[in-house]
Amino acid sequence: MSDRPETPLLDKVRLPADMRGFSDRQLGQLADELRAETISAVSETGGHLGAGLGVVELTVALHAVFEAPRDKIIWDVSHQSYPHKILTGRRDRIRSLRQKDGLSGFTKRSESPYDPFGAAHSSTSISAALGFAAARDLGGDAGDAIAVIGDGAMSAGMAYEALNHAGHLGKRLIVILNDNEMSIAPPVGAMSSYLSRLYAGAPFHDLKAAAKGALNFLPPPFAEGARRARDMLKHMTVGGTLFEELGFDYVGPIDGHDMEQLLAVLRTVKARADGPILIHAITQKGKGYAPAEGAVDRGHATAKFDVVTGEQKKAPSNAPSYTAVFAEALIKAAETDDKVVAVTAAMPDGTGLSKFMARFSDRCFDVGIAEQHAVTFCAGLAAGGMKPFCAIYSTFLQRGYDQLVHDVAIQRLPVRFAIDRAGLVGADGATHAGSFDIAYLANLPGFTVMAAADEAELVRMVATALAHDAGPIAFRFPRGEGVGVEIPEDAPPLEIGKGRIIREGSGVALVSLGTRLAEAEAACEALEARGIAPTLADARFAKPLDRDLILDLAARHEALITIEEGATGGFGSHVAQLLAEAGVFDTGLKFRSMVLPDIFIDQASPRDMYAVAGLNAEDIEAKVLQVLGAEVLSKRA
Amino acid sequence: MSDRPETPLLDKVRLPADMRGFSDRQLGQLADELRAETISAVSETGGHLGAGLGVVELTVALHAVFEAPRDKIIWDVSHQSYPHKILTGRRDRIRSLRQKDGLSGFTKRSESPYDPFGAAHSSTSISAALGFAAARDLGGDAGDAIAVIGDGAMSAGMAYEALNHAGHLGKRLIVILNDNEMSIAPPVGAMSSYLSRLYAGAPFHDLKAAAKGALNFLPPPFAEGARRARDMLKHMTVGGTLFEELGFDYVGPIDGHDMEQLLAVLRTVKARADGPILIHAITQKGKGYAPAEGAVDRGHATAKFDVVTGEQKKAPSNAPSYTAVFAEALIKAAETDDKVVAVTAAMPDGTGLSKFMARFSDRCFDVGIAEQHAVTFCAGLAAGGMKPFCAIYSTFLQRGYDQLVHDVAIQRLPVRFAIDRAGLVGADGATHAGSFDIAYLANLPGFTVMAAADEAELVRMVATALAHDAGPIAFRFPRGEGVGVEIPEDAPPLEIGKGRIIREGSGVALVSLGTRLAEAEAACEALEARGIAPTLADARFAKPLDRDLILDLAARHEALITIEEGATGGFGSHVAQLLAEAGVFDTGLKFRSMVLPDIFIDQASPRDMYAVAGLNAEDIEAKVLQVLGAEVLSKRA
Repeated sequence: MSDRPETPLLDKVRLPADMRGFSDRQLGQLADELRAETISAVSETGGHLGAGLGVVELTVALHAVFEAPRDKIIWDVSHQSYPHKILTGRRDRIRSLRQKDGLSGFTKRSESPYDPFGAAHSSTSISAALGFAAARDLGGDAGDAIAVIGDGAMSAGMAYEALNHAGHLGKRLIVILNDNEMSIAPPVGAMSSYLSRLYAGAPFHDLKAAAKGALNFLPPPFAEGARRARDMLKHMTVGGTLFEELGFDYVGPIDGHDMEQLLAVLRTVKARADGPILIHAITQKGKGYAPAEGAVDRGHATAKFDVVTGEQKKAPSNAPSYTAVFAEALIKAAETDDKVVAVTAAMPDGTGLSKFMARFSDRCFDVGIAEQHAVTFCAGLAAGGMKPFCAIYSTFLQRGYDQLVHDVAIQRLPVRFAIDRAGLVGADGATHAGSFDIAYLANLPGFTVMAAADEAELVRMVATALAHDAGPIAFRFPRGEGVGVEIPEDAPPLEIGKGRIIREGSGVALVSLGTRLAEAEAACEALEARGIAPTLADARFAKPLDRDLILDLAARHEALITIEEGATGGFGSHVAQLLAEAGVFDTGLKFRSMVLPDIFIDQASPRDMYAVAGLNAEDIEAKVLQVLGAEVLSKRA
Repeated sequence: MSDRPETPLLDKVRLPADMRGFSDRQLGQLADELRAETISAVSETGGHLGAGLGVVELTVALHAVFEAPRDKIIWDVSHQSYPHKILTGRRDRIRSLRQKDGLSGFTKRSESPYDPFGAAHSSTSISAALGFAAARDLGGDAGDAIAVIGDGAMSAGMAYEALNHAGHLGKRLIVILNDNEMSIAPPVGAMSSYLSRLYAGAPFHDLKAAAKGALNFLPPPFAEGARRARDMLKHMTVGGTLFEELGFDYVGPIDGHDMEQLLAVLRTVKARADGPILIHAITQKGKGYAPAEGAVDRGHATAKFDVVTGEQKKAPSNAPSYTAVFAEALIKAAETDDKVVAVTAAMPDGTGLSKFMARFSDRCFDVGIAEQHAVTFCAGLAAGGMKPFCAIYSTFLQRGYDQLVHDVAIQRLPVRFAIDRAGLVGADGATHAGSFDIAYLANLPGFTVMAAADEAELVRMVATALAHDAGPIAFRFPRGEGVGVEIPEDAPPLEIGKGRIIREGSGVALVSLGTRLAEAEAACEALEARGIAPTLADARFAKPLDRDLILDLAARHEALITIEEGATGGFGSHVAQLLAEAGVFDTGLKFRSMVLPDIFIDQASPRDMYAVAGLNAEDIEAKVLQVLGAEVLSKRA
């Protein structure tokens, strides 16, 4: 694609040990080459560029000072881990990032011993690092435990829980706060503005001078040197009290792009730390690549791009994304109903709510990376008379599961959940798959659970959720573009718990929930060529089930097959429970439930991932043939 | 039971409005009477005594100053809400607390308009209150939003997420930190010691003097008065920085048992607050009742007791509790394997780990109310080479659900989950029911999920978990006493994924998972009298299923019925999936899955709750008769 950069020093580094003999100046050059290589690689693969560019110097400094894999470097979320991957034996595969059979876009234990703890969801690193530290002190694996966590991830309660416990335990533990004032979205929350105040008046230059002295500038218990160093330090740590109050030593803020400073601080910490310490490094997301530095999101996630211009090479879009359709529908709802409010957890762009926010800024809340709070905040909004739409990806809503049960479902509060990225999501792989939401929602008493089969259905489900005040209601929809159906101007609410027949047939009934409907239709067409004409229904609701429809289909067909983009325990399981209780199995029904298989599926295109899952049209076709008997199946061969 | 206390003033208060004309002195007397009534009531019902006694003055002061239900008073966890219930129209039912058809032991929206937001799990109150505040400012329900949260609850990330968001939004919101240095267990975490430092040198008497001046002592933006008041205030708020850094005004610490001070502070806050404010009140758990004040747990949760002596009236125990059996087994495991560590989230007594902690203090971690961190901390311990046992109640493990998926299951880390309080739990009601863990664990790839049928099985499951290094493993067991079977000295691990036949019969096969086994056995005996001899199996594993056993039973019987103490989506659903895929339903099988019904079941005795659920012996018997056909059923009548 683009010319590869010249990287003479980087070419000598296959593993971190290869940089042992490098001078500090050479480490600076290595960082420059690593930056160029990262840009070049991501231009070919797409992915998270800005985060990695922000920690290039930190990555080199960490690997120069510490001894991975003995020392455990844990990258929070790990969008920023591409430079780390290049330095730890994976450079030869870095241009396969996020592709089928390629490197994961995240750290992954099974991928490398240099990834001691995988990540993808935010704010887990301090807990994990503390686990390593505690294990080490009890005779487990040796080595330092180092968490590198962004300022955005600090808004999550999980990070606070870990700081609180770490401060209590007092074990040697190194937390590097990578503060770029920019997580996925602009920063949110009091913690964020607190951090800004910490470095608002911070004298990097003074610190740089201090760093040359290196060993004397750290706060107690590190500072043992001259009174002068101590006083300088006092100035540096002014405002560090929040972390200090939680039991951490605080060093910073330091310039996270100044190799000299980074090396000095890390070497000192390595030599002296005897408890939990937090190093506050200020970095710039997208650092060193002008198109990223200039972008609003600092090059957070990009498609493949032209290295020179920064222009992204996105495939032309045929249909609007589900996300955009949802956002438009919600804006329309808010225009007619002033009780509609929208809540997101640090994903205003990903969930489409940024459009809503631009229109109704006072009725849109971005709570930061804080899904637990987001759900209960919505419960409070609902109890206070509003109609909250809580827009969170399926995989991240897992963070608010107890709140779904305890604060929303038990109280039957009418919170509306817009669950984006339902089902398999492609390049982000297993950690981002929305596999479990149908199962974990549909067994909550009083919850209504819908899945949209296409973008027109999604619009009707927004209307349905708006109209539903009797209890909590959720609608799920996938990542990516719709199927291209026309979106109705007037979208009346659906009748709760009623599905629809898509095509009438005989012999076998397919009951789809969600966007596998298009695959099921394709399967039906292929089957018709074989003289098989299945009935096809769109269940629309995983809860309450359309009992009449399902029992009628069961009565009128030899076989009934459910299809959903979710794990066992969801729609198919509830259908099975209904059929069993109604005695349908007593006399025989060829019932099958097509669900996500019992494996975590690695990243690939969604289509390829669904092929692994066995949920594409050809899999549905094969399932029908298999169920209808071997003789039919043999015709296929 | 015991003589009722004299309560002349309290007798005049049916609702908070009835105390409007009371003088401050009378309010003090009302508090004394309320304390006596609370002690008297809990002596008859059992329940959470210490927490309520700690907030008697605060309860009276809040209801005297604010106007519930217009103003929303939200009690975190709400163990401390009994005095509030007495003052808000529920005194006549207070002696039915936690009993069948009686008052809930927690706040509950459906119980009273004075309970604007129910609770039971910790640390939800600030999120909920912020929701009310935001709703109010957008034209929703009017009134102040007031969260009363304990110091223990502040260790949960959720509380921090809410503070962070509230500080960011800047809306008028009142948080009362009820600091008694004693949540359920002794305090844990850096936040706890931080709070202690805040009031270590705090001059209550100075504050008392200041409170008489009342309106002038609050910090900016409240302080407008004389410089003297401002200076006094400066002294008072020293150390309040952590909350101030998060955007809150901080008032305190104040004496939470000094009615004069409470009234002055609350009146001022009500008159002046224009943003989020945190009032730090120091209280004493169990205050005013000597037996509680003198108890280690300050009367946290008690059985019925004698008011004079404080002696609790517990029913004699026949068999050891599952909790105790688990703890003993884990201690034995730790004696032989120095890699065994135990982790609890603020429940060392409830999970039995206090015994383990006494024996192996360095290998036992109480992380505070912080289930998210607990799970990922365990994942880190496992990745670091230890064998962590994570002991958390089923209902609270919901807080760590995403961590179970993302940090444990995806990485296949061998964390052992000891899930206490599985199934219905009795007096704590729906919020504490362990209904969902089988469903939310059994569809996670690579997870092994067991349920103990009796205490001997539990010991073997501890051994099984200890021996299982291939991935995560969980075992669940109920609240309460075992069935009284002998506990083997030598308890070898179970073969993974293998169930056992309890009795061989014919016609119908019952496959039980967990402690309904005893009920199923009783049902079998009753059925034998009718000439029906079911086969009975104990599945032991919800995952992996004993495929051979289940298919064999299905082949050899006309009917197969699964039984579990969990919601749809769990064991029975996985069995249905297996049977469907194997084509068993094609030719007919009378399959039924007995699960918890699709309702939240109110508190009662566990046996009564299981009667509502339809999972007692007589329900199993009736199900068998029904499945075997109406003619058999008719014999029953």
